[in-house]
Amino acid sequence: MAAVPVSDRILMGPGPGNPYPEVLSAFTRPVLGHLDPEFIELLDETNERLREAYRSSHRLTFPVSATGSAGMEACFVNVVNPGDVVVIGVNGVFGARMCDVAARCGAEVVRVDAPWGTPIDPEQLLAAHPSPKVIAVVHAETSTGVRNDIAELGANKGDALLLVDCVTSLGGIELLVDDWGIDLAYSGTQKCLGVPPGLSPVTVSARAVESFVERSQSWYLDMRMIAAYVEAGAARSYHHTAPISMIYGLHAGLGVLLEEGVEASWARHASVGQHLQDGLEALGLRLFAQEGHRLPELTTVWTPEGADEAKLRRALLDRWSIEIGGGLGEFAGKVWRIGLMGHTARIRNADLFLAALSELLSELVR
Amino acid sequence: MAAVPVSDRILMGPGPGNPYPEVLSAFTRPVLGHLDPEFIELLDETNERLREAYRSSHRLTFPVSATGSAGMEACFVNVVNPGDVVVIGVNGVFGARMCDVAARCGAEVVRVDAPWGTPIDPEQLLAAHPSPKVIAVVHAETSTGVRNDIAELGANKGDALLLVDCVTSLGGIELLVDDWGIDLAYSGTQKCLGVPPGLSPVTVSARAVESFVERSQSWYLDMRMIAAYVEAGAARSYHHTAPISMIYGLHAGLGVLLEEGVEASWARHASVGQHLQDGLEALGLRLFAQEGHRLPELTTVWTPEGADEAKLRRALLDRWSIEIGGGLGEFAGKVWRIGLMGHTARIRNADLFLAALSELLSELVR
Repeated sequence: MAAVPVSDRILMGPGPGNPYPEVLSAFTRPVLGHLDPEFIELLDETNERLREAYRSSHRLTFPVSATGSAGMEACFVNVVNPGDVVVIGVNGVFGARMCDVAARCGAEVVRVDAPWGTPIDPEQLLAAHPSPKVIAVVHAETSTGVRNDIAELGANKGDALLLVDCVTSLGGIELLVDDWGIDLAYSGTQKCLGVPPGLSPVTVSARAVESFVERSQSWYLDMRMIAAYVEAGAARSYHHTAPISMIYGLHAGLGVLLEEGVEASWARHASVGQHLQDGLEALGLRLFAQEGHRLPELTTVWTPEGADEAKLRRALLDRWSIEIGGGLGEFAGKVWRIGLMGHTARIRNADLFLAALSELLSELVR
Repeated sequence: MAAVPVSDRILMGPGPGNPYPEVLSAFTRPVLGHLDPEFIELLDETNERLREAYRSSHRLTFPVSATGSAGMEACFVNVVNPGDVVVIGVNGVFGARMCDVAARCGAEVVRVDAPWGTPIDPEQLLAAHPSPKVIAVVHAETSTGVRNDIAELGANKGDALLLVDCVTSLGGIELLVDDWGIDLAYSGTQKCLGVPPGLSPVTVSARAVESFVERSQSWYLDMRMIAAYVEAGAARSYHHTAPISMIYGLHAGLGVLLEEGVEASWARHASVGQHLQDGLEALGLRLFAQEGHRLPELTTVWTPEGADEAKLRRALLDRWSIEIGGGLGEFAGKVWRIGLMGHTARIRNADLFLAALSELLSELVR
């Protein structure tokens, strides 16, 4: 049985990014049982590290045993009863996905749209309904490279729960769960945490826990039951088998993050992202996301005029083993998404990409 | 930040078992993007290997991006509409879990119970309702060590869909999805496949696909949408980010299984399990599961009379680094569950365990 060859890519798409080397090493640790005292200790430490990364004091903080979109679903199914009003900001694919997920919970979805590439106006979200159960928004829109403002929502949310998609923000840009009043946040491991995809770290406030639905429509994502396993101090009762090796990886990735320092990681992403964006403009390309709300960890840029953008991406992959992402929805073929996340967020990757792109563009006019 | 120490356990509980060494190596492969042509090729090959392991020709065969219980939920949420009749056999924890999951889909659950430790009578399941939408049963009950008969259900199911929990059976005992008429099967990676927990391989018949619900209550587990990503031949459209490294591990574990041969793996589990069960009886212990329906990969045995069973399990862990499992439900403290699954299913592990147990029992009477 021939092993499939696996190339050593530079992952500059919208995620996954390249994992920290420490993470892949951690994957090779001997597997422990999910009730083994040693594993419980490691899980507790992982959750404590997540609180630090999230700047969260929420007791219920743990990795959902599935990828980021399952974290989204976990947050909605545990607080939304049929008929509940959920206000959702939509300026990209992931805001739209929230509407789909909330609707499947029977929510009355009040949708507040902003054009792709621009941020959601927090005042519009707050004014959309007098007494929503939940206000939900994406912090870092992976489909457009736009950062939405969160702090103002938390300050003025009233009785609503504030639910935030932090898939592409955690570890990459300033994110302050406690200070901003976020009640439910979810993320993914494969973006700015520098861990392969497979887990969705969530953090949930006591207020949100108090308003949990009686019985979640999902058994697997039922946080009432999961809490009996993941919460420190309680007698651990088996819910489902934890993905042991992935949790080793997350534990190790968070170790790298905290050793660097969360603020230092934000600063690294900021400076490398700025470097890339400056370089793209120097090559004559136009950035897509609105200035002032651009994500450094995920740059969006209009594709080079007159070029076959898919061919250019294929050349990047074949000649330099660099992956970048295409646009989504109506921007497919028109916008590129270039990630510099986690271990990938290094000047050397930005420089290599700019050099490769410059070469490809000069070949076009030859 | 001190790394948490991780012991090198012999995992003889109800799962996870020890992974094949080839699997941990595969985890360290460079991460690819989920739309990278190389990754798609590896995913296709993984799904083809799953079909071989399952003895299934079902086109829709893939690993759900979460652990076994999510596979269970994925099977139910895609075929059960509110009000649908679902007949479920219950002779342990996982049959009961099926009832919970089906009820959350709004199913009218018709439950057929058998005492724990005994198999479900297929005729009773078939007679429970004249026209159920689904008949569901656990092939290998991980809570009791009992094998339930499947073939007769498939032969006489009529228009019903046959849904089978194969978490602890796939790779460990005879399992013939096509021949037995199984429409929906799910498994876990951490049992007889010798891969750490994290994925749930499923295989779904064309009949089941045709009767998919309009819109699954779960977005993450919506197989209509997932099929657009995992099915060979189709243009791949992004649904959620696949857990790349876990799929490397599954691909490698299935490679080990197929190189040994699926029947050879069944035979190895059978002989090692029989060896353990003979040895336990030779030590004067009584097996729990009914003869003729005992799983070789998961042995259940009444705990030694007059002994503190938790203390014995702790001694096994501390002195030999062997993990075994306690009983569940009313059999907590009364029954042990001893797994010999995947890479753990070796004579040397059975012999070491028997030697250690013999030593502990002799210390009791000293």
